[in-house]
Amino acid sequence: VTHQAWKTVIITEKLLVDRVAEIIEANGGTGYTYVSAGGKGSRGKRATTDRAAVVDGLSNVKIEVITPDHANAEAIAEAVAAQFFENFSGITYLEPVEILRQHKFVPA
Amino acid sequence: VTHQAWKTVIITEKLLVDRVAEIIEANGGTGYTYVSAGGKGSRGKRATTDRAAVVDGLSNVKIEVITPDHANAEAIAEAVAAQFFENFSGITYLEPVEILRQHKFVPA
Amino acid sequence: VTHQAWKTVIITEKLLVDRVAEIIEANGGTGYTYVSAGGKGSRGKRATTDRAAVVDGLSNVKIEVITPDHANAEAIAEAVAAQFFENFSGITYLEPVEILRQHKFVPA
Repeated sequence: VTHQAWKTVIITEKLLVDRVAEIIEANGGTGYTYVSAGGKGSRGKRATTDRAAVVDGLSNVKIEVITPDHANAEAIAEAVAAQFFENFSGITYLEPVEILRQHKFVPA
Repeated sequence: VTHQAWKTVIITEKLLVDRVAEIIEANGGTGYTYVSAGGKGSRGKRATTDRAAVVDGLSNVKIEVITPDHANAEAIAEAVAAQFFENFSGITYLEPVEILRQHKFVPA
Repeated sequence: VTHQAWKTVIITEKLLVDRVAEIIEANGGTGYTYVSAGGKGSRGKRATTDRAAVVDGLSNVKIEVITPDHANAEAIAEAVAAQFFENFSGITYLEPVEILRQHKFVPA
Protein backbone atom coordinates (compact mmCIF):
# COMPACT_ATOMS: atom_id res chain seq x y z
CA VAL A 1 0.00 0.00 0.00
CA THR A 2 1.43 3.35 -1.04
CA HIS A 3 0.39 6.93 -0.29
CA GLN A 4 0.37 9.85 -2.68
CA ALA A 5 2.98 12.50 -1.90
CA TRP A 6 4.91 15.20 -3.74
CA LYS A 7 8.55 15.80 -4.45
CA THR A 8 9.82 19.34 -4.85
CA VAL A 9 12.99 19.52 -6.94
CA ILE A 10 15.24 22.58 -6.77
CA ILE A 11 18.25 22.94 -9.05
CA THR A 12 20.36 25.96 -8.24
CA GLU A 13 23.83 27.20 -7.32
CA LYS A 14 25.73 25.16 -4.75
CA LEU A 15 26.32 28.09 -2.41
CA LEU A 16 22.57 28.26 -1.70
CA VAL A 17 22.23 24.79 -0.15
CA ASP A 18 22.04 26.03 3.44
CA ARG A 19 19.49 28.72 2.66
CA VAL A 20 17.33 26.37 0.61
CA ALA A 21 17.46 23.86 3.48
CA GLU A 22 16.14 26.55 5.83
CA ILE A 23 13.23 27.26 3.49
CA ILE A 24 12.46 23.54 3.24
CA GLU A 25 12.36 23.17 7.00
CA ALA A 26 10.28 26.33 7.42
CA ASN A 27 7.67 24.92 5.02
CA GLY A 28 7.12 21.48 6.49
CA GLY A 29 9.93 19.49 4.89
CA THR A 30 11.63 17.13 7.33
CA GLY A 31 14.36 15.69 5.15
CA TYR A 32 15.99 16.34 1.83
CA THR A 33 18.54 14.87 -0.52
CA TYR A 34 21.00 16.56 -2.82
CA VAL A 35 23.35 15.64 -5.59
CA SER A 36 26.00 17.64 -7.43
CA ALA A 37 24.76 18.79 -10.81
CA GLY A 38 25.76 20.77 -13.85
CA GLY A 39 23.66 22.17 -16.60
CA LYS A 40 22.56 24.95 -18.84
CA GLY A 41 19.64 27.19 -17.94
CA SER A 42 17.14 28.95 -20.15
CA ARG A 43 18.94 32.24 -19.47
CA GLY A 44 22.35 30.67 -19.90
CA LYS A 45 23.19 31.47 -16.29
CA ARG A 46 23.98 27.91 -15.36
CA ALA A 47 26.02 27.36 -18.50
CA THR A 48 29.71 26.64 -18.56
CA THR A 49 31.49 26.98 -21.88
CA ASP A 50 33.00 23.54 -21.73
CA ARG A 51 30.19 21.08 -21.17
CA ALA A 52 32.51 18.15 -20.56
CA ALA A 53 34.20 20.05 -17.74
CA VAL A 54 30.85 20.66 -16.11
CA VAL A 55 30.15 16.96 -15.87
CA ASP A 56 33.22 16.50 -13.74
CA GLY A 57 33.36 19.83 -11.92
CA LEU A 58 29.75 20.32 -11.06
CA SER A 59 28.89 23.74 -9.68
CA ASN A 60 25.14 23.31 -9.18
CA VAL A 61 23.14 21.26 -6.75
CA LYS A 62 19.88 19.37 -7.21
CA ILE A 63 17.91 19.31 -3.98
CA GLU A 64 14.87 17.09 -3.48
CA VAL A 65 12.34 17.05 -0.68
CA ILE A 66 9.20 14.96 -0.27
CA THR A 67 6.09 16.19 1.53
CA PRO A 68 2.75 14.42 1.79
CA ASP A 69 0.86 17.58 0.92
CA HIS A 70 0.77 19.34 -2.46
CA ALA A 71 0.39 22.70 -0.70
CA ASN A 72 3.64 22.20 1.19
CA ALA A 73 5.46 21.06 -1.94
CA GLU A 74 4.26 24.11 -3.83
CA ALA A 75 5.02 26.47 -0.92
CA ILE A 76 8.64 25.29 -0.88
CA ALA A 77 8.96 25.80 -4.63
CA GLU A 78 7.34 29.25 -4.51
CA ALA A 79 9.47 30.41 -1.58
CA VAL A 80 12.72 29.27 -3.19
CA ALA A 81 11.80 30.89 -6.51
CA ALA A 82 10.76 34.14 -4.84
CA GLN A 83 13.84 34.44 -2.67
CA PHE A 84 16.58 33.35 -5.06
CA PHE A 85 15.67 33.14 -8.71
CA GLU A 86 15.82 36.87 -9.40
CA ASN A 87 19.49 36.92 -8.47
CA PHE A 88 20.65 33.34 -8.86
CA SER A 89 20.13 30.79 -11.58
CA GLY A 90 17.80 27.95 -10.80
CA ILE A 91 14.62 26.08 -11.55
CA THR A 92 12.10 24.31 -9.37
CA TYR A 93 9.30 21.88 -10.11
CA LEU A 94 7.08 19.27 -8.49
CA GLU A 95 6.76 15.55 -9.17
CA PRO A 96 4.07 13.12 -8.00
CA VAL A 97 5.47 10.26 -5.93
CA GLU A 98 4.15 7.33 -3.92
CA ILE A 99 5.59 6.74 -0.47
CA LEU A 100 5.36 3.63 1.68
CA ARG A 101 4.95 5.21 5.08
CA GLN A 102 3.48 8.63 5.42
CA HIS A 103 4.78 9.40 8.90
CA LYS A 104 8.40 9.56 7.80
CA PHE A 105 7.71 12.80 5.93
CA VAL A 106 5.69 14.59 8.61
CA PRO A 107 7.50 16.76 11.17
CA ALA A 108 7.68 15.20 14.62
CA VAL B 1 4.16 5.87 -28.30
CA THR B 2 5.11 5.46 -24.66
CA HIS B 3 4.26 2.82 -22.07
CA GLN B 4 3.44 3.36 -18.42
CA ALA B 5 6.08 2.09 -16.04
CA TRP B 6 7.30 2.76 -12.52
CA LYS B 7 10.54 3.97 -11.04
CA THR B 8 11.54 2.90 -7.57
CA VAL B 9 13.91 5.35 -5.90
CA ILE B 10 16.04 4.28 -2.94
CA ILE B 11 18.21 6.76 -1.05
CA THR B 12 20.39 5.14 1.56
CA GLU B 13 23.93 4.64 2.80
CA LYS B 14 26.57 3.98 0.17
CA LEU B 15 27.77 0.74 1.74
CA LEU B 16 24.41 -0.89 0.92
CA VAL B 17 24.64 -0.57 -2.86
CA ASP B 18 25.51 -4.20 -3.48
CA ARG B 19 22.80 -5.53 -1.22
CA VAL B 20 20.17 -3.21 -2.68
CA ALA B 21 21.22 -4.34 -6.17
CA GLU B 22 20.60 -7.95 -5.13
CA ILE B 23 17.11 -7.08 -3.93
CA ILE B 24 16.40 -5.24 -7.18
CA GLU B 25 17.46 -8.23 -9.25
CA ALA B 26 15.51 -10.64 -7.05
CA ASN B 27 12.34 -8.60 -7.63
CA GLY B 28 12.33 -8.28 -11.38
CA GLY B 29 14.58 -5.26 -11.89
CA THR B 30 17.00 -5.70 -14.79
CA GLY B 31 18.98 -2.49 -14.57
CA TYR B 32 19.52 0.37 -12.20
CA THR B 33 21.28 3.69 -11.97
CA TYR B 34 22.90 5.38 -9.02
CA VAL B 35 24.30 8.75 -8.13
CA SER B 36 26.21 9.96 -5.10
CA ALA B 37 23.99 11.91 -2.75
CA GLY B 38 23.97 13.73 0.54
CA GLY B 39 21.10 14.79 2.68
CA LYS B 40 19.30 15.04 5.94
CA GLY B 41 16.74 12.43 6.98
CA SER B 42 13.65 12.78 9.11
CA ARG B 43 15.50 11.07 11.93
CA GLY B 44 18.65 13.08 11.36
CA LYS B 45 20.53 9.89 10.54
CA ARG B 46 21.64 11.03 7.14
CA ALA B 47 22.63 14.44 8.46
CA THR B 48 26.15 15.80 8.49
CA THR B 49 26.84 18.85 10.61
CA ASP B 50 28.39 20.79 7.79
CA ARG B 51 25.95 20.80 4.92
CA ALA B 52 28.42 22.32 2.47
CA ALA B 53 30.84 19.47 3.12
CA VAL B 54 28.13 16.96 2.33
CA VAL B 55 27.64 18.40 -1.12
CA ASP B 56 31.23 17.61 -1.97
CA GLY B 57 31.82 14.50 0.11
CA LEU B 58 28.62 12.62 -0.48
CA SER B 59 28.13 9.58 1.73
CA ASN B 60 24.74 8.43 0.49
CA VAL B 61 23.61 6.89 -2.74
CA LYS B 62 20.41 7.40 -4.72
CA ILE B 63 19.52 4.23 -6.62
CA GLU B 64 16.82 4.15 -9.30
CA VAL B 65 15.26 1.18 -11.05
CA ILE B 66 12.45 1.08 -13.60
CA THR B 67 10.00 -1.79 -13.88
CA PRO B 68 6.92 -2.01 -16.11
CA ASP B 69 4.78 -3.29 -13.28
CA HIS B 70 3.63 -1.38 -10.19
CA ALA B 71 3.70 -4.59 -8.15
CA ASN B 72 7.40 -5.10 -8.90
CA ALA B 73 8.22 -1.48 -8.14
CA GLU B 74 6.43 -1.69 -4.81
CA ALA B 75 7.97 -5.08 -3.97
CA ILE B 76 11.47 -3.63 -4.41
CA ALA B 77 10.63 -0.68 -2.16
CA GLU B 78 9.02 -2.88 0.49
CA ALA B 79 11.91 -5.34 0.51
CA VAL B 80 14.55 -2.64 0.82
CA ALA B 81 12.64 -0.89 3.60
CA ALA B 82 12.05 -4.15 5.48
CA GLN B 83 15.66 -5.32 5.26
CA PHE B 84 17.57 -2.10 5.88
CA PHE B 85 15.59 0.82 7.23
CA GLU B 86 15.42 -0.40 10.80
CA ASN B 87 19.20 -0.28 11.06
CA PHE B 88 20.28 2.10 8.33
CA SER B 89 19.02 5.49 7.28
CA GLY B 90 17.11 5.67 4.03
CA ILE B 91 13.91 6.40 2.21
CA THR B 92 12.23 4.81 -0.76
CA TYR B 93 9.40 5.91 -3.00
CA LEU B 94 7.83 5.27 -6.41
CA GLU B 95 7.40 7.60 -9.37
CA PRO B 96 5.27 7.14 -12.49
CA VAL B 97 7.31 7.17 -15.70
CA GLU B 98 6.73 6.58 -19.39
CA ILE B 99 9.15 4.38 -21.27
CA LEU B 100 9.67 4.05 -24.99
CA ARG B 101 10.25 0.34 -25.26
CA GLN B 102 8.87 -2.00 -22.69
CA HIS B 103 11.16 -4.93 -23.42
CA LYS B 104 14.27 -3.19 -22.13
CA PHE B 105 12.96 -3.42 -18.58
CA VAL B 106 11.80 -7.03 -18.61
CA PRO B 107 14.23 -9.79 -17.60
CA ALA B 108 15.46 -11.86 -20.52
CA VAL C 1 -0.60 27.65 -9.43
CA THR C 2 1.41 25.06 -11.30
CA HIS C 3 1.47 23.97 -14.94
CA GLN C 4 1.78 20.46 -16.29
CA ALA C 5 5.05 19.77 -18.05
CA TRP C 6 7.25 16.80 -18.88
CA LYS C 7 10.74 15.80 -17.96
CA THR C 8 12.79 13.66 -20.33
CA VAL C 9 15.49 11.68 -18.57
CA ILE C 10 18.44 10.27 -20.51
CA ILE C 11 21.01 8.03 -18.85
CA THR C 12 23.92 7.20 -21.09
CA GLU C 13 27.69 7.30 -21.49
CA LYS C 14 29.41 10.49 -20.40
CA LEU C 15 31.11 11.06 -23.73
CA LEU C 16 27.71 11.70 -25.35
CA VAL C 17 26.78 14.77 -23.29
CA ASP C 18 27.52 17.30 -26.03
CA ARG C 19 25.66 15.37 -28.69
CA VAL C 20 22.64 14.79 -26.43
CA ALA C 21 22.62 18.51 -25.63
CA GLU C 22 22.44 19.28 -29.35
CA ILE C 23 19.45 16.96 -29.74
CA ILE C 24 17.74 18.58 -26.76
CA GLU C 25 18.19 22.06 -28.23
CA ALA C 26 17.08 20.92 -31.68
CA ASN C 27 13.83 19.57 -30.19
CA GLY C 28 12.68 22.58 -28.18
CA GLY C 29 14.58 22.08 -24.92
CA THR C 30 16.02 25.32 -23.55
CA GLY C 31 17.89 24.04 -20.52
CA TYR C 32 19.04 20.81 -19.04
CA THR C 33 20.70 19.43 -15.95
CA TYR C 34 23.08 16.54 -15.56
CA VAL C 35 24.62 14.50 -12.81
CA SER C 36 27.32 11.86 -12.83
CA ALA C 37 25.87 8.38 -12.60
CA GLY C 38 26.80 4.74 -12.52
CA GLY C 39 24.68 1.69 -13.08
CA LYS C 40 23.95 -1.58 -14.67
CA GLY C 41 21.89 -1.84 -17.84
CA SER C 42 19.59 -4.57 -19.03
CA ARG C 43 22.23 -5.63 -21.53
CA GLY C 44 25.01 -5.27 -19.00
CA LYS C 45 26.63 -2.59 -21.08
CA ARG C 46 26.64 -0.02 -18.32
CA ALA C 47 27.90 -2.53 -15.80
CA THR C 48 31.22 -2.36 -14.05
CA THR C 49 32.42 -5.46 -12.28
CA ASP C 50 33.02 -3.69 -9.01
CA ARG C 51 29.82 -1.90 -8.09
CA ALA C 52 31.40 0.00 -5.20
CA ALA C 53 33.96 1.48 -7.56
CA VAL C 54 31.20 2.69 -9.84
CA VAL C 55 29.64 4.74 -7.08
CA ASP C 56 32.83 6.75 -6.75
CA GLY C 57 34.12 6.65 -10.30
CA LEU C 58 30.94 7.29 -12.22
CA SER C 59 31.23 6.83 -15.96
CA ASN C 60 27.65 7.57 -16.98
CA VAL C 61 25.63 10.74 -17.02
CA LYS C 62 21.98 11.34 -16.23
CA ILE C 63 20.64 14.24 -18.25
CA GLU C 64 17.26 15.83 -17.56
CA VAL C 65 15.32 18.36 -19.58
CA ILE C 66 11.88 19.83 -18.98
CA THR C 67 9.54 20.86 -21.76
CA PRO C 68 5.94 22.06 -21.44
CA ASP C 69 4.79 19.79 -24.22
CA HIS C 70 4.56 15.99 -24.18
CA ALA C 71 5.34 15.88 -27.90
CA ASN C 72 8.64 17.69 -27.37
CA ALA C 73 9.55 15.48 -24.44
CA GLU C 74 8.86 12.36 -26.46
CA ALA C 75 10.66 13.71 -29.53
CA ILE C 76 13.82 14.23 -27.48
CA ALA C 77 13.62 10.71 -26.09
CA GLU C 78 12.97 9.16 -29.50
CA ALA C 79 15.79 11.09 -31.17
CA VAL C 80 18.33 10.17 -28.49
CA ALA C 81 17.30 6.50 -28.60
CA ALA C 82 17.40 6.39 -32.40
CA GLN C 83 20.80 8.06 -32.71
CA PHE C 84 22.72 6.44 -29.87
CA PHE C 85 21.17 3.38 -28.29
CA GLU C 86 22.14 0.96 -31.01
CA ASN C 87 25.82 1.63 -30.40
CA PHE C 88 25.96 3.02 -26.88
CA SER C 89 24.36 1.93 -23.65
CA GLY C 90 21.53 4.06 -22.33
CA ILE C 91 17.92 4.40 -21.40
CA THR C 92 15.44 7.23 -21.69
CA TYR C 93 12.03 7.86 -20.18
CA LEU C 94 9.54 10.61 -19.42
CA GLU C 95 8.17 11.84 -16.10
CA PRO C 96 5.21 14.13 -15.44
CA VAL C 97 6.17 17.30 -13.57
CA GLU C 98 4.51 20.52 -12.48
CA ILE C 99 6.32 23.77 -13.12
CA LEU C 100 5.70 27.18 -11.59
CA ARG C 101 6.27 29.37 -14.59
CA GLN C 102 5.80 28.04 -18.06
CA HIS C 103 7.82 30.68 -19.89
CA LYS C 104 11.13 29.54 -18.42
CA PHE C 105 10.97 26.33 -20.47
CA VAL C 106 9.94 27.82 -23.80
CA PRO C 107 12.64 28.94 -26.25
CA ALA C 108 12.99 32.75 -26.45
